[in-house]
Amino acid sequence: MSNILTGIDLGGTNVKIGCFDLQLKLLCKTAAATEADMGPEAVVARMAETTEKLLTENDLSPKDIAAVGIGAPGPAKLDEGIIIASPNMPLFKNVPLRKMVGDAFGKPAVLENDANTACWGEYVAGAGKGARDMIFFTLGTGIGGGVIIKGKLVHGCADNAAELGHVIIYPNGRRCACGQKGCVEAYASADSTARRATEALEAGADSSLKSVLEQTGRITCKDVYDHLAQGDKLAKEITDVTAEALAIICINMLHTTEPKRIVFAGGMIAAGDILLNRIKDFFNEHIWSLKKETVEISFATLGEDAGIIGAAALAKQALEQANEG
Amino acid sequence: MSNILTGIDLGGTNVKIGCFDLQLKLLCKTAAATEADMGPEAVVARMAETTEKLLTENDLSPKDIAAVGIGAPGPAKLDEGIIIASPNMPLFKNVPLRKMVGDAFGKPAVLENDANTACWGEYVAGAGKGARDMIFFTLGTGIGGGVIIKGKLVHGCADNAAELGHVIIYPNGRRCACGQKGCVEAYASADSTARRATEALEAGADSSLKSVLEQTGRITCKDVYDHLAQGDKLAKEITDVTAEALAIICINMLHTTEPKRIVFAGGMIAAGDILLNRIKDFFNEHIWSLKKETVEISFATLGEDAGIIGAAALAKQALEQANEG
Repeated sequence: MSNILTGIDLGGTNVKIGCFDLQLKLLCKTAAATEADMGPEAVVARMAETTEKLLTENDLSPKDIAAVGIGAPGPAKLDEGIIIASPNMPLFKNVPLRKMVGDAFGKPAVLENDANTACWGEYVAGAGKGARDMIFFTLGTGIGGGVIIKGKLVHGCADNAAELGHVIIYPNGRRCACGQKGCVEAYASADSTARRATEALEAGADSSLKSVLEQTGRITCKDVYDHLAQGDKLAKEITDVTAEALAIICINMLHTTEPKRIVFAGGMIAAGDILLNRIKDFFNEHIWSLKKETVEISFATLGEDAGIIGAAALAKQALEQANEG
Repeated sequence: MSNILTGIDLGGTNVKIGCFDLQLKLLCKTAAATEADMGPEAVVARMAETTEKLLTENDLSPKDIAAVGIGAPGPAKLDEGIIIASPNMPLFKNVPLRKMVGDAFGKPAVLENDANTACWGEYVAGAGKGARDMIFFTLGTGIGGGVIIKGKLVHGCADNAAELGHVIIYPNGRRCACGQKGCVEAYASADSTARRATEALEAGADSSLKSVLEQTGRITCKDVYDHLAQGDKLAKEITDVTAEALAIICINMLHTTEPKRIVFAGGMIAAGDILLNRIKDFFNEHIWSLKKETVEISFATLGEDAGIIGAAALAKQALEQANEG
C-alpha cells in the first residue's frame, strides 16, 4: 500500500529510526547503537533489520514503506548520495549511502546532511512551520546550521553551505577546533560555554560553580544554566557571552538571507527563556536603527525527533518530485 | 520586431540607460541627470524620452523595445514593483515604479534593487559568469551586496536580503551610519577607508598622505591606494584593515551560502591587484584548515555598465518566464 515514510537519523553513537504516515504523523520510532566500527555495510543492514522489526512489532508491514530518508553527518556529495567522510565514523569514507540504503530497503532513498535534516524537520513540523525563509542552529558539542530560502534547503556550490558554527564573529578571537579563530562555535556551543566557565573558575573566579568543578572534575553547559537560574554571577557572565555571540550571528544572517524565523535547537535550549530572552536582548542592543526588524527568534519544538521527521519529510518530497517528473 | 531590451540604472544623481539586443549585446547607451527633486512622474517621463531619443539617434525604433528592466536604490516591495523609500531621492516614497515605467514605455517592465541589478549583470555577463552560486559586493560610499543561489537572486522574506555591508564583523567596533557598530561597511567601504586614513593623520600618523590632507582638506580612497602604490606605510596599514575586513566577510559568506565565486565591484576596485591580493592573503590567513577551499575571489569586469546590463538581463528573464507561463 506504500503509505509509510521511514526517517533515519544516523549519528556516530546512535541511529534513530521513525516511521510516519504520508501526512508525517509518527507511527512508531526506535533507536539503536550505530556500531559504526562494524563498517557501512553492517550499519546499513542493521538499519533495515531494525526498521523491519519496529514495523512488525507495531502491526505494520515493511512492504508498505514508500521511501526512506537518511540524515547523516559529515561532508557529502548530496546529488550523488555519497558520504565523503564523517569525523565520528572513520570507516565511512566515500560511502554511497543513498544507494546502499535504497538497496537494503528495496525502496527509493534520499540522503541529506544531518543538521539540514533536523532543520527540515523543524521547518515542516516544528518551530519553522509557515516560515518560507528560515535559519537554523543546533547548539551542541559544536554548532551546526541550516539555511532555507523560499522553502528550499541551501546546499551551496559543493554541498558545504550552512556551516554556520564557523562564521567568524570575533576575528582573532578564541581558537576553534576547525582551525579558525573567533568562530561563533568557539563561544556559543554547549561545549564552549562549559569550557569558558571552567577557564574562569581555574582563573580564580568566584562562583557557586566552583563546588561542581571540585566535586565532579568538570563543568557542563547544563551546570552553567542551572547556576544561572540560581542567580550565580559568573554563570550570568558566561551566558551573556553565549547569548551575545548568538545575537550577532542572528543579525548577520538577517542581513544575508533575511529569514522570517531563526530557530535554535540542541541540548542547550533546555536552558529555556532565560537564555532565549538574553539572545533577544542582545539582538535588540546590536541591531541597526534603519528600520524595525520583525525576524522571529525562537527555540526548536521537536526535540530529538527533528532528524527523523525531517528525514521522512525529505523522503516524501523526493517521492512527490519523482511523481511530478 | 520586439528585439530590444532596455536596461535602466536609476541613481540619486544620474540615470544610466542602455539598449541591448536579445543576446544582451550593447547597442547604445547614455546617461542623464536624474533630477529626483522633480518627483517620480517627471523622472519616469524623462527616462522614456531619453530612451526614445537614444534609439532614434542610433537608427533604432522605440517600438522595437521588448521589455524594460530598472534597478533602483532603497527598500522595495519587489513582487509589487514598488519603491518604498530611497535615501537620495526623498520624493520616492511608495512609488509603483514598475507600473509607471511599464506605462511610460508601453512595454512590460521589471523592478529590482540596484545592488542586485549590478550583481545580476556581473553574473550573466561579467566576473560571475558560469558560477551558479555567487556573492557580490559593491565597495562605494557604502557597501552593497547581492546573493545568488542556484542561479537566482536571493530577496529574503521581505525583499531586504543581501544587506551585506551591515554584516557585523567587529562587534562593538566602529559606528556605522546604520546605527550598528562594527559593520563591514564601517571599515571597508571607500568612504570608511578614506575616513580611517584621515583620522590616523589627524592623530599624528606620519605619511605621504599628510600633504594631500593639507593641500586639499580631505583624503579620498583613491589617495590611499595611490600612496599605497608608492610604498607609504600608513596607506598600507589602512589598506590592510580594509582587506582583512573583506576577507573575514568572504569567509563568513563561504560558510553561509557556499558561493563558487565572490565578486567585488565599485570604485575601490580601481586599486587593482595590490588590494585583491591582500584580500586573498587575509582570506588564507583566517580560513579554516578543515578542508581546502576553492572559492574564487575576484574583481568585477563590467565597470559602470553592470547595472544596465543586469537590468536588461532581468527584463529578458521576465519575458522568457512570461512566455513559459
